[in-house]
This record gives sequence, structure tokens and C-alpha cells, in this order.
Amino acid sequence: MFKVKISSVGRSREPWLKIALEEYEKRLSHQLEIEWRIAKDDADLLEKITTPLIALDAQGEQVSSEHLAKKLSSLLITQGSRLHFLIGGPNGIPKKILEQSAWIWSLSRLTFTHQMTRLILLEQLYRWVQIESGTAYHK
Amino acid sequence: MFKVKISSVGRSREPWLKIALEEYEKRLSHQLEIEWRIAKDDADLLEKITTPLIALDAQGEQVSSEHLAKKLSSLLITQGSRLHFLIGGPNGIPKKILEQSAWIWSLSRLTFTHQMTRLILLEQLYRWVQIESGTAYHK
Repeated sequence: MFKVKISSVGRSREPWLKIALEEYEKRLSHQLEIEWRIAKDDADLLEKITTPLIALDAQGEQVSSEHLAKKLSSLLITQGSRLHFLIGGPNGIPKKILEQSAWIWSLSRLTFTHQMTRLILLEQLYRWVQIESGTAYHK
Repeated sequence: MFKVKISSVGRSREPWLKIALEEYEKRLSHQLEIEWRIAKDDADLLEKITTPLIALDAQGEQVSSEHLAKKLSSLLITQGSRLHFLIGGPNGIPKKILEQSAWIWSLSRLTFTHQMTRLILLEQLYRWVQIESGTAYHK
């Protein structure tokens, strides 16, 4: 069991998203424990940020899901069974925090809502566990 | 009002996804009419496919949401106020269909479920309309 912290701005107002996130958390509950830190704005989000973290930012590196699995497994070892993901607010993540990040990751060249980003992140975490478990899910 | 057809494989079994897709369809209902063609398998999906279409495939071009908006607006003109998106099954889209496509588009280097792809597609269609309308949504 390892810990994943996800820091983001703004509560979800979409009922379907709440159900979707709960569904993926449930599926992941045997492997990892998710801690959400939802800040009310950028200042609040960044105030208590401790590095190193994985910053989700448009300027980051794009990888395939297979590459992502290797990257996360490696980060998990170097970071002592804890991963901390930061999803920036509408103004992006400050340069200072990006510079101190363990890895800067870009999901896509497309822009997504922060809500959608949370869902994509959980689905990729689930995919990662499936890739490492050798199940057929990711095929 | 213009028409968007989305062809894909396999019905969604996720209740949250049904709600999410309906939410975006509702938001888009003043600008476009969405017709879903959900096939039971790859053979069924490809049997009645008419080209030109927009093929969502890992081998396609990745674009930003702003670039996507320009691309879709342009395709909408050349294709007579109709757009047809094809989301391939687990085996991808056959080469013959890719070759006849008006555009091959890749959402991300990551692999998504077909369900998630439908949701991302609708959110990007909504984002496109917002970009063309000059609202603050996409900022």
C-alpha cells in the first residue's frame, strides 16, 4: 500500500465527476491510498506545497501510458512509497515550483478542465497498476 | 445548427459516463446535434463507415485546443456542416480507413478507454464552440 497525494484548486461541482472519481478510488483501494488536497485558490494551493512533486503542466513531458508506468514506478522508489501530484490552477504552476519538481508531466497538447484532469489522472494511475500487474485492461 | 456523428465500439457500462455525456450534449444542444453510432464490435463498426471522417487514432496529429478549434471550423466548411468522428476499437483503425480519412487526430500519447475518449471528445467540442464564441471558458 502506498500513498498518493493530489493537490488541486476548486471543488468539483459536477455530480458525475464525484461518482467517477469514487469509482476509480475504489478500484485502486487495494494498492494505494489517495489523499486529496483541494485548495480554494492558487495562493492557498501553493502555500503549503512541499516538494519534490510531480507537476501536471502543459510545459511538461508527454509520455505513453507504458512509459508513464515505468516513470511512476521509478519515482515511487526514489520518493519512498509516496507520490504527490500537483494540478495547477487556471494560471498554471509558478516557475519556482516547476524548477523544484521531481518531474513535469503534460497529459496532452489539449487543454482540459481541472475536473477532467483529475479523472484522467486517476484512470492513468489505475492503468499503471494494471500494467504492472500484467492484466489485460491496458491492452 | 450542424451535425456531429460519433462512431464507436461498445456501449458504456459506467453510469457516471452516461450522465457526463448527457451534460455536455445538453450544453452543446444550441450549436450542434450529436448522433451516436455505437457498434457491437470492430467489424460492425467498420462495415457501414462512410468517409471522409475524422479518425481518432494514436498515429494521428496532436494539436492544442486552439489549433483544434481552427481545424474543426475549417473541416466543418469543407465537409458541409457535418463532422464524423471515428473512435477505433481495441485493435485500432484499419489502415485503409485511416488513408481515406479527412484528418487523423491523436488526443494524447497516453492510452485512454473508449469511454473516456468519448467524454474528452465532447469536452473538446464544447471547448471549440466556446473558443469560437469568445467566452472565458477555455482560458
